Amino acid sequence: MGFFEEKIAGRTVFKGRILQLDVDRVRLDDGSVAERECVRHSGGAAVLYTKREGGICKILLVKQFRYLYGKEIWEIPAGKLEVGEDPLLAAKRELEEETGYIGGELVPLLKIYPSVGYTDEVIHIYEAKGCRADLRKPDEGEFLDVKLTDLNDVLKMIDEGEICDAKTVAAIYKYCLKNGIEI
Amino acid sequence: MGFFEEKIAGRTVFKGRILQLDVDRVRLDDGSVAERECVRHSGGAAVLYTKREGGICKILLVKQFRYLYGKEIWEIPAGKLEVGEDPLLAAKRELEEETGYIGGELVPLLKIYPSVGYTDEVIHIYEAKGCRADLRKPDEGEFLDVKLTDLNDVLKMIDEGEICDAKTVAAIYKYCLKNGIEI
Repeated sequence: MGFFEEKIAGRTVFKGRILQLDVDRVRLDDGSVAERECVRHSGGAAVLYTKREGGICKILLVKQFRYLYGKEIWEIPAGKLEVGEDPLLAAKRELEEETGYIGGELVPLLKIYPSVGYTDEVIHIYEAKGCRADLRKPDEGEFLDVKLTDLNDVLKMIDEGEICDAKTVAAIYKYCLKNGIEI
Repeated sequence: MGFFEEKIAGRTVFKGRILQLDVDRVRLDDGSVAERECVRHSGGAAVLYTKREGGICKILLVKQFRYLYGKEIWEIPAGKLEVGEDPLLAAKRELEEETGYIGGELVPLLKIYPSVGYTDEVIHIYEAKGCRADLRKPDEGEFLDVKLTDLNDVLKMIDEGEICDAKTVAAIYKYCLKNGIEI
Protein backbone atom coordinates (compact mmCIF):
# COMPACT_ATOMS: atom_id res chain seq x y z
CA MET A 1 0.00 0.00 0.00
CA GLY A 2 2.48 2.64 1.12
CA PHE A 3 2.19 6.20 2.32
CA PHE A 4 0.27 9.03 0.77
CA GLU A 5 -0.21 12.73 1.28
CA GLU A 6 -3.60 14.09 0.35
CA LYS A 7 -3.98 17.69 -0.78
CA ILE A 8 -6.60 19.48 1.30
CA ALA A 9 -5.96 23.07 0.22
CA GLY A 10 -3.59 25.08 -1.93
CA ARG A 11 -2.76 28.56 -3.09
CA THR A 12 -0.69 29.78 -6.01
CA VAL A 13 1.87 32.27 -4.75
CA PHE A 14 3.52 33.05 -8.08
CA LYS A 15 3.03 32.27 -11.74
CA GLY A 16 5.97 33.14 -13.97
CA ARG A 17 7.49 32.34 -17.31
CA ILE A 18 9.56 29.41 -16.00
CA LEU A 19 7.77 28.18 -12.92
CA GLN A 20 4.70 28.38 -10.75
CA LEU A 21 4.98 28.31 -6.97
CA ASP A 22 2.14 26.78 -4.96
CA VAL A 23 1.86 26.28 -1.23
CA ASP A 24 -0.30 23.22 -0.63
CA ARG A 25 -1.69 21.89 2.62
CA VAL A 26 -1.62 18.13 2.83
CA ARG A 27 -2.95 15.49 5.18
CA LEU A 28 -0.42 12.83 6.12
CA ASP A 29 -1.22 9.19 6.82
CA ASP A 30 -1.22 9.75 10.55
CA GLY A 31 -3.88 12.46 10.16
CA SER A 32 -1.57 15.40 10.81
CA VAL A 33 -1.44 18.34 8.43
CA ALA A 34 1.67 19.81 6.77
CA GLU A 35 2.56 22.45 4.18
CA ARG A 36 4.38 21.67 0.95
CA GLU A 37 6.23 24.33 -1.05
CA CYS A 38 5.71 23.25 -4.65
CA VAL A 39 7.61 24.50 -7.67
CA ARG A 40 5.52 23.37 -10.67
CA HIS A 41 7.52 23.19 -13.88
CA SER A 42 6.58 21.94 -17.33
CA GLY A 43 9.69 19.77 -17.58
CA GLY A 44 12.92 19.81 -19.52
CA ALA A 45 14.57 18.03 -22.42
CA ALA A 46 18.30 17.54 -22.95
CA VAL A 47 20.51 15.94 -25.57
CA LEU A 48 23.77 14.05 -25.28
CA TYR A 49 25.37 14.22 -28.70
CA THR A 50 28.57 12.26 -29.12
CA LYS A 51 30.85 12.19 -32.14
CA ARG A 52 33.98 10.17 -32.90
CA GLU A 53 36.79 12.28 -34.34
CA GLY A 54 40.06 10.49 -35.10
CA GLY A 55 39.26 7.68 -32.66
CA ILE A 56 38.44 10.13 -29.88
CA CYS A 57 34.96 10.38 -28.39
CA LYS A 58 33.73 13.97 -28.22
CA ILE A 59 30.72 15.36 -26.38
CA LEU A 60 28.78 18.39 -27.54
CA LEU A 61 28.67 20.91 -24.70
CA VAL A 62 27.32 24.42 -24.49
CA LYS A 63 28.55 27.12 -22.12
CA GLN A 64 25.92 29.45 -20.77
CA PHE A 65 25.83 32.11 -18.11
CA ARG A 66 23.60 30.84 -15.31
CA TYR A 67 22.44 33.71 -13.17
CA LEU A 68 21.58 31.56 -10.14
CA TYR A 69 25.21 30.47 -9.86
CA GLY A 70 26.70 33.77 -11.05
CA LYS A 71 28.93 32.09 -13.59
CA GLU A 72 29.17 30.34 -16.92
CA ILE A 73 28.39 26.65 -16.81
CA TRP A 74 29.17 23.86 -19.27
CA GLU A 75 26.15 21.65 -19.96
CA ILE A 76 24.68 19.40 -22.58
CA PRO A 77 22.15 21.28 -24.77
CA ALA A 78 18.77 21.50 -23.04
CA GLY A 79 15.67 23.55 -22.61
CA LYS A 80 12.24 23.83 -21.12
CA LEU A 81 9.22 22.02 -22.50
CA GLU A 82 6.25 24.03 -23.62
CA VAL A 83 3.23 22.87 -21.61
CA GLY A 84 2.21 19.47 -22.98
CA GLU A 85 5.04 19.37 -25.52
CA ASP A 86 6.55 16.05 -26.60
CA PRO A 87 9.99 15.93 -24.89
CA LEU A 88 11.55 14.41 -28.01
CA LEU A 89 10.48 17.36 -30.15
CA ALA A 90 11.68 19.79 -27.49
CA ALA A 91 15.04 18.01 -27.39
CA LYS A 92 15.44 18.30 -31.18
CA ARG A 93 14.46 21.95 -31.08
CA GLU A 94 16.88 22.84 -28.29
CA LEU A 95 19.70 20.95 -29.95
CA GLU A 96 19.18 22.90 -33.16
CA GLU A 97 18.58 26.29 -31.53
CA GLU A 98 21.48 26.11 -29.11
CA THR A 99 24.07 24.36 -31.25
CA GLY A 100 22.96 24.31 -34.87
CA TYR A 101 23.10 20.51 -35.00
CA ILE A 102 20.23 18.96 -36.95
CA GLY A 103 19.06 15.65 -38.34
CA GLY A 104 20.12 12.31 -36.95
CA GLU A 105 18.25 10.16 -34.49
CA LEU A 106 17.40 10.79 -30.84
CA VAL A 107 16.85 7.85 -28.50
CA PRO A 108 15.83 8.03 -24.81
CA LEU A 109 18.84 7.72 -22.48
CA LEU A 110 17.63 8.69 -19.02
CA LYS A 111 14.86 10.50 -17.15
CA ILE A 112 15.72 12.39 -13.97
CA TYR A 113 13.92 14.21 -11.17
CA PRO A 114 16.31 17.06 -10.35
CA SER A 115 15.27 17.89 -6.79
CA VAL A 116 12.46 15.78 -5.38
CA GLY A 117 11.82 17.89 -2.27
CA TYR A 118 10.33 20.98 -3.88
CA THR A 119 9.97 20.69 -7.67
CA ASP A 120 7.94 18.39 -9.91
CA GLU A 121 10.28 18.91 -12.86
CA VAL A 122 11.20 15.89 -14.98
CA ILE A 123 14.20 16.16 -17.31
CA HIS A 124 14.09 13.83 -20.32
CA ILE A 125 17.56 13.10 -21.68
CA TYR A 126 18.13 11.73 -25.17
CA GLU A 127 21.18 10.40 -26.91
CA ALA A 128 21.65 11.80 -30.41
CA LYS A 129 23.43 10.00 -33.21
CA GLY A 130 24.31 10.96 -36.78
CA CYS A 131 23.52 14.66 -36.55
CA ARG A 132 25.17 17.25 -38.77
CA ALA A 133 26.15 20.83 -38.11
CA ASP A 134 23.89 23.45 -39.68
CA LEU A 135 24.28 27.21 -39.37
CA ARG A 136 24.32 28.28 -35.74
CA LYS A 137 21.05 29.89 -34.90
CA PRO A 138 20.87 30.59 -31.17
CA ASP A 139 17.68 31.93 -29.61
CA GLU A 140 17.68 35.66 -29.19
CA GLY A 141 18.88 36.36 -25.66
CA GLU A 142 20.78 33.08 -25.38
CA PHE A 143 24.52 33.55 -25.69
CA LEU A 144 26.09 30.18 -26.08
CA ASP A 145 29.55 28.84 -26.64
CA VAL A 146 29.35 25.44 -28.31
CA LYS A 147 32.18 22.94 -28.20
CA LEU A 148 32.78 19.31 -29.10
CA THR A 149 34.85 18.34 -26.07
CA ASP A 150 37.05 15.27 -25.62
CA LEU A 151 35.21 12.87 -23.29
CA ASN A 152 38.34 12.46 -21.14
CA ASP A 153 38.42 16.22 -20.59
CA VAL A 154 34.72 16.19 -19.73
CA LEU A 155 35.24 13.45 -17.13
CA LYS A 156 38.12 15.44 -15.66
CA MET A 157 35.93 18.55 -15.50
CA ILE A 158 33.31 16.56 -13.58
CA ASP A 159 35.92 15.15 -11.19
CA GLU A 160 37.31 18.61 -10.53
CA GLY A 161 33.86 20.10 -9.92
CA GLU A 162 34.01 22.25 -13.03
CA ILE A 163 30.96 20.46 -14.44
CA CYS A 164 28.26 20.03 -11.78
CA ASP A 165 25.05 20.25 -13.78
CA ALA A 166 23.01 17.20 -12.76
CA LYS A 167 21.57 16.27 -16.17
CA THR A 168 25.02 16.58 -17.75
CA VAL A 169 26.76 14.47 -15.11
CA ALA A 170 24.08 11.76 -15.12
CA ALA A 171 23.96 11.58 -18.94
CA ILE A 172 27.71 11.37 -19.38
CA TYR A 173 28.12 8.77 -16.64
CA LYS A 174 25.35 6.65 -18.14
CA TYR A 175 26.96 6.91 -21.56
CA CYS A 176 30.32 5.75 -20.12
CA LEU A 177 28.77 2.83 -18.27
CA LYS A 178 26.75 1.75 -21.31
CA ASN A 179 29.82 1.80 -23.50
CA GLY A 180 32.29 0.27 -21.09
CA ILE A 181 34.35 3.47 -20.81
CA GLU A 182 36.42 3.64 -17.62
CA ILE A 183 37.17 6.74 -15.63
CA MET B 1 36.22 37.21 -19.98
CA GLY B 2 32.84 35.65 -20.77
CA PHE B 3 29.27 36.79 -20.29
CA PHE B 4 27.68 38.20 -17.21
CA GLU B 5 24.25 39.23 -16.00
CA GLU B 6 24.15 42.09 -13.55
CA LYS B 7 21.32 42.34 -11.03
CA ILE B 8 19.63 45.73 -11.24
CA ALA B 9 16.56 45.07 -9.10
CA GLY B 10 14.88 42.27 -7.24
CA ARG B 11 11.89 41.40 -5.12
CA THR B 12 11.22 38.49 -2.81
CA VAL B 13 7.91 36.90 -3.74
CA PHE B 14 7.88 34.16 -1.12
CA LYS B 15 9.91 33.07 1.86
CA GLY B 16 9.13 29.59 3.14
CA ARG B 17 10.59 26.79 5.18
CA ILE B 18 12.33 25.13 2.22
CA LEU B 19 12.89 27.85 -0.32
CA GLN B 20 12.74 31.55 -1.08
CA LEU B 21 11.49 32.78 -4.43
CA ASP B 22 12.92 36.02 -5.83
CA VAL B 23 12.21 37.69 -9.14
CA ASP B 24 15.33 39.59 -10.18
CA ARG B 25 15.80 42.02 -13.04
CA VAL B 26 19.17 41.66 -14.72
CA ARG B 27 21.11 43.54 -17.36
CA LEU B 28 22.62 41.34 -20.06
CA ASP B 29 25.91 41.97 -21.85
CA ASP B 30 24.13 43.52 -24.82
CA GLY B 31 22.46 46.07 -22.54
CA SER B 32 19.01 44.50 -22.67
CA VAL B 33 17.08 43.73 -19.51
CA ALA B 34 15.52 40.40 -18.53
CA GLU B 35 13.74 38.82 -15.55
CA ARG B 36 15.07 35.82 -13.69
CA GLU B 37 12.86 33.59 -11.52
CA CYS B 38 15.15 32.53 -8.69
CA VAL B 39 14.56 29.72 -6.23
CA ARG B 40 17.08 30.32 -3.43
CA HIS B 41 17.81 27.20 -1.41
CA SER B 42 20.32 26.56 1.36
CA GLY B 43 21.60 23.39 -0.31
CA GLY B 44 21.43 19.69 0.30
CA ALA B 45 23.60 16.86 1.55
CA ALA B 46 23.31 13.20 0.57
CA VAL B 47 25.07 9.97 1.46
CA LEU B 48 25.89 6.93 -0.62
CA TYR B 49 26.47 4.13 1.86
CA THR B 50 27.63 0.84 0.39
CA LYS B 51 28.13 -2.43 2.20
CA ARG B 52 29.43 -5.79 1.03
CA GLU B 53 27.30 -8.70 2.16
CA GLY B 54 28.37 -12.16 1.05
CA GLY B 55 30.33 -10.78 -1.92
CA ILE B 56 27.38 -8.69 -3.05
CA CYS B 57 27.52 -4.90 -3.08
CA LYS B 58 24.51 -3.32 -1.41
CA ILE B 59 23.36 0.29 -1.46
CA LEU B 60 21.46 1.90 1.40
CA LEU B 61 18.25 3.40 0.00
CA VAL B 62 15.31 5.07 1.65
CA LYS B 63 11.77 5.17 0.29
CA GLN B 64 9.87 8.34 0.92
CA PHE B 65 6.56 9.75 -0.27
CA ARG B 66 7.37 12.76 -2.45
CA TYR B 67 4.33 14.96 -2.75
CA LEU B 68 5.50 16.73 -5.91
CA TYR B 69 5.51 13.41 -7.78
CA GLY B 70 2.53 11.93 -5.96
CA LYS B 71 4.35 8.72 -5.16
CA GLU B 72 6.97 6.98 -3.08
CA ILE B 73 10.50 7.38 -4.38
CA TRP B 74 13.67 5.41 -3.64
CA GLU B 75 16.63 7.66 -2.93
CA ILE B 76 19.91 7.72 -1.10
CA PRO B 77 19.54 9.34 2.34
CA ALA B 78 19.59 13.13 2.05
CA GLY B 79 18.33 16.35 3.52
CA LYS B 80 18.44 20.09 3.49
CA LEU B 81 21.30 22.10 4.96
CA GLU B 82 20.58 24.57 7.69
CA VAL B 83 21.69 28.00 6.51
CA GLY B 84 25.51 28.06 6.66
CA GLU B 85 25.73 24.46 7.87
CA ASP B 86 28.74 22.31 6.97
CA PRO B 87 27.45 19.84 4.34
CA LEU B 88 29.47 17.02 5.89
CA LEU B 89 27.74 17.45 9.24
CA ALA B 90 24.36 17.66 7.53
CA ALA B 91 25.12 14.46 5.64
CA LYS B 92 26.00 12.60 8.86
CA ARG B 93 22.88 13.94 10.55
CA GLU B 94 20.56 12.92 7.71
CA LEU B 95 22.13 9.48 7.46
CA GLU B 96 21.54 8.89 11.14
CA GLU B 97 18.06 10.45 11.29
CA GLU B 98 16.73 8.73 8.19
CA THR B 99 18.38 5.34 8.49
CA GLY B 100 19.90 4.92 11.93
CA TYR B 101 23.38 4.33 10.49
CA ILE B 102 26.12 6.01 12.49
CA GLY B 103 29.89 6.20 12.74
CA GLY B 104 32.22 5.45 9.88
CA GLU B 105 33.84 7.91 7.55
CA LEU B 106 32.27 10.18 4.95
CA VAL B 107 34.32 11.34 1.95
CA PRO B 108 33.19 13.74 -0.79
CA LEU B 109 31.98 11.89 -3.88
CA LEU B 110 30.26 14.46 -6.08
CA LYS B 111 28.67 17.91 -6.05
CA ILE B 112 25.69 18.60 -8.31
CA TYR B 113 23.55 21.54 -9.40
CA PRO B 114 20.09 19.97 -9.74
CA SER B 115 18.41 22.42 -12.13
CA VAL B 116 20.57 25.33 -13.26
CA GLY B 117 17.79 27.37 -14.88
CA TYR B 118 15.86 28.38 -11.77
CA THR B 119 17.44 27.18 -8.52
CA ASP B 120 20.77 27.90 -6.84
CA GLU B 121 20.71 24.66 -4.88
CA VAL B 122 23.92 22.67 -4.57
CA ILE B 123 23.71 19.03 -3.45
CA HIS B 124 26.85 17.70 -1.76
CA ILE B 125 27.10 13.93 -2.03
CA TYR B 126 29.37 11.87 0.24
CA GLU B 127 30.41 8.27 0.19
CA ALA B 128 30.16 6.60 3.58
CA LYS B 129 32.28 3.66 4.69
CA GLY B 130 32.35 1.55 7.81
CA CYS B 131 29.09 2.75 9.35
CA ARG B 132 27.06 0.62 11.73
CA ALA B 133 23.33 0.36 12.27
CA ASP B 134 22.02 2.05 15.40
CA LEU B 135 18.43 2.24 16.56
CA ARG B 136 16.22 3.73 13.87
CA LYS B 137 15.26 7.25 14.83
CA PRO B 138 13.46 8.95 11.95
CA ASP B 139 12.51 12.63 12.18
CA GLU B 140 8.98 13.18 13.32
CA GLY B 141 6.87 13.53 10.18
CA GLU B 142 9.30 11.58 8.02
CA PHE B 143 8.10 8.08 7.27
CA LEU B 144 10.90 6.15 5.74
CA ASP B 145 11.45 2.65 4.52
CA VAL B 146 15.13 1.82 4.68
CA LYS B 147 16.70 -0.99 2.67
CA LEU B 148 20.15 -2.27 1.79
CA THR B 149 19.54 -3.06 -1.87
CA ASP B 150 21.65 -5.19 -4.20
CA LEU B 151 23.54 -2.83 -6.54
CA ASN B 152 22.44 -4.87 -9.57
CA ASP B 153 18.82 -4.34 -8.59
CA VAL B 154 19.45 -0.64 -8.10
CA LEU B 155 20.98 -0.35 -11.59
CA LYS B 156 17.99 -2.19 -13.03
CA MET B 157 15.63 0.17 -11.22
CA ILE B 158 17.44 3.14 -12.77
CA ASP B 159 17.31 1.57 -16.24
CA GLU B 160 13.61 0.92 -15.90
CA GLY B 161 12.88 4.46 -14.69
CA GLU B 162 11.90 3.28 -11.22
CA ILE B 163 14.74 5.33 -9.71
CA CYS B 164 14.92 8.80 -11.28
CA ASP B 165 16.17 10.96 -8.42
CA ALA B 166 19.11 12.91 -9.84
CA LYS B 167 21.43 12.78 -6.82
CA THR B 168 20.83 9.04 -6.47
CA VAL B 169 21.46 8.28 -10.15
CA ALA B 170 24.58 10.45 -10.33
CA ALA B 171 26.03 9.04 -7.10
CA ILE B 172 25.46 5.41 -8.04
CA TYR B 173 26.82 5.85 -11.55
CA LYS B 174 29.93 7.58 -10.19
CA TYR B 175 30.41 4.76 -7.69
CA CYS B 176 30.18 2.16 -10.48
CA LEU B 177 32.61 4.01 -12.71
CA LYS B 178 35.09 4.54 -9.88
CA ASN B 179 35.00 0.87 -8.97
CA GLY B 180 35.01 -0.59 -12.49
CA ILE B 181 31.50 -2.03 -12.13
CA GLU B 182 29.77 -2.62 -15.47
CA ILE B 183 26.11 -2.19 -16.21
